[in-house]
Amino acid sequence: MPKTKIYLDNNATTPLHPRVRKKMINTMDVFGNPSSLHQFGREARSLIQNARRDIADFINADPDEIIFAGSGSEANNTVLSMLTCPSKPCTIRSEQKPHVITTEIEHPCILETASCINQTAEVDYLGVDELGKIDLKELKRKLKNNTILVSVMMANNEIGTIQEIKKITEIVKQHGSLMHTDAVQAVGKLPADVKDLDVDYLSMSAHKIYGPKGIGALYIKNGAPFCPFIRGGHQEKGRRAGTENTMGIIGFGEAIRLRKEEMLSEEKRLKKLRQKLKTGLENNIKKIKFIGDQEDTLPNTLNVAFYGVEGESILLYLDNAGIAVSTGSACSSGSTKPSHVISATGLEQEYIHGSIRISMGRNTTEEDIDYTIETFTKVIQKLRSFTTFNNETEK
Amino acid sequence: MPKTKIYLDNNATTPLHPRVRKKMINTMDVFGNPSSLHQFGREARSLIQNARRDIADFINADPDEIIFAGSGSEANNTVLSMLTCPSKPCTIRSEQKPHVITTEIEHPCILETASCINQTAEVDYLGVDELGKIDLKELKRKLKNNTILVSVMMANNEIGTIQEIKKITEIVKQHGSLMHTDAVQAVGKLPADVKDLDVDYLSMSAHKIYGPKGIGALYIKNGAPFCPFIRGGHQEKGRRAGTENTMGIIGFGEAIRLRKEEMLSEEKRLKKLRQKLKTGLENNIKKIKFIGDQEDTLPNTLNVAFYGVEGESILLYLDNAGIAVSTGSACSSGSTKPSHVISATGLEQEYIHGSIRISMGRNTTEEDIDYTIETFTKVIQKLRSFTTFNNETEK
Repeated sequence: MPKTKIYLDNNATTPLHPRVRKKMINTMDVFGNPSSLHQFGREARSLIQNARRDIADFINADPDEIIFAGSGSEANNTVLSMLTCPSKPCTIRSEQKPHVITTEIEHPCILETASCINQTAEVDYLGVDELGKIDLKELKRKLKNNTILVSVMMANNEIGTIQEIKKITEIVKQHGSLMHTDAVQAVGKLPADVKDLDVDYLSMSAHKIYGPKGIGALYIKNGAPFCPFIRGGHQEKGRRAGTENTMGIIGFGEAIRLRKEEMLSEEKRLKKLRQKLKTGLENNIKKIKFIGDQEDTLPNTLNVAFYGVEGESILLYLDNAGIAVSTGSACSSGSTKPSHVISATGLEQEYIHGSIRISMGRNTTEEDIDYTIETFTKVIQKLRSFTTFNNETEK
Repeated sequence: MPKTKIYLDNNATTPLHPRVRKKMINTMDVFGNPSSLHQFGREARSLIQNARRDIADFINADPDEIIFAGSGSEANNTVLSMLTCPSKPCTIRSEQKPHVITTEIEHPCILETASCINQTAEVDYLGVDELGKIDLKELKRKLKNNTILVSVMMANNEIGTIQEIKKITEIVKQHGSLMHTDAVQAVGKLPADVKDLDVDYLSMSAHKIYGPKGIGALYIKNGAPFCPFIRGGHQEKGRRAGTENTMGIIGFGEAIRLRKEEMLSEEKRLKKLRQKLKTGLENNIKKIKFIGDQEDTLPNTLNVAFYGVEGESILLYLDNAGIAVSTGSACSSGSTKPSHVISATGLEQEYIHGSIRISMGRNTTEEDIDYTIETFTKVIQKLRSFTTFNNETEK
């Protein structure tokens, strides 16, 4: 194990904020079942309500519009699964086969669910341009009479590109369809105001913003149709069964409350670091490409592709040098297929296998970035020395 | 708030075992995404695999047969939802409309899901006798050609009655159907050996056995058909998407490992306390009935009904005196309907609204039980003094 530990994979997950950690430890002994009527239950219930309020505050929602989930993936599955709910009184289903529109660059928890429901629902996918943005005209063309739901992610986990959710929602609502956004990577890195965005559903996750793993949340606009995904007890006003993950919820609440304090200054700082990293890599290494929109981007995310080398080799060499990055989403790691997101941007074959996601966080320092630039330079040089790249480029 | 804090609602949830608490705090800084290939990911992955092994060990399964879930409710939903999976390649579906058999006394997460899938599947419910046991002959009668799945809980959360899962499974397997047991209340209070029981699916939860909330697990026998409930990333070998709840999983593993050490001596101790409590209440209070099987029962659970009083009033008076009990499952608390479990046992109307579940735990002492008997005696006397009960019984 190298002594250096530079963690540049904050889009995969983040360490607990020390104050989240502290709050979770301090409330670990509040163990009552939040549904219980006695003092032990009331104590837990009240902490959960505080956390719900903090989350609602952050996105300008009412606390009642927030339900908790076991992950961002569960929140996303919840929305899409409404379309295939076998229960009759489900409010979202129409007589016609429902039509859903999503994009080619969504997270697998949207894409896999979409592909799974395609027996019961009709699914259309929007492509993206080379910056990773969808085309609003294509969206307009694809909206149909039976389009019930449109689901477009707010910011992409692999390349950082931010979609124009407000404009998209305007089109979707004008058509009379429902709008969902997977904001797992966006909320807490960027501001998000559900009243301004006007979305019907929005998914979030704690562990992307220095909160615990195993807890997500779904915003459901007051009055929007809803059908529970996990059924059973009357928790979350009958919208999500299962004993509440009190500790996780408390951690989520604290994490998002702290983002409110830290996010804006962090955004500035990370943008500078991102620029420094980009310039450093560009200056030192030939034949590289930066993927995704370089303006409308998550401030912490830089996705860079190197001509003629394998991303996984880069990752392993960096890991040996104590730097953690990823080749795409952690959810797909181990796969040899090129990322579906990067493929969708139309990146050339010579680059597509050599892409690396560098995602910084609140612990990332300037020194980390200096060391990272230096190490990348050496690693790419070494890897390319194994191939004919140098000779080729000298020609 | 009273100074006394006697927690007798351990079937709703339990406090963290101090060693679980310690282990969770000690590993809180292992934050990598378990799917990541770098050192941070490997560290988390290895802790998760240890926990999986501890859980598998406890029920005599292979680690690969265990997947994690966000709750026992999710695990139960996962099994039942396979029957309505909209995806074509799903292995559990037949050409015929599938038939499922469950019981009238299951947890709401089974009953609500069963009622939800009843458009796509045919559902039959087994009744119970006055002890809360199902009738094996009725099961045999109800098995049909298209019976795909039978789901019977191992031990009831409200009345403690234990079903003869091994015998039930024998009948189900002879018929060629799949067998699921909701063992959320049983595993860790009682031993459970999946090889001996021969079930195909078994649901568990950490927070019933001094582990954290927000984490459950599902045993899936090697080779049993399976279809994921939460879809997306390839976590849990493609069987349950979403970043793993590392902290929760570690806590679950430690909790179940400790049950292996403590369960048998605790079982003995709790049986004695249960008997003491039962005798005390019987001696002091007229017209009471103990519900459920008094032999084949969870050792920690005593469900007692008082003639002519309201369970919720008892609960509130006890809460004021610092004792936490419940009227049924926490998942249904706040509801004015009598418990579906107690109704299913055919308890007389005069008792049905006056039932209280007392569920002890590893922190329960003899002194707690003395104080509880004393307080119950006073509270029931007081509540009955508000009614005509005393006069009536003097006649």
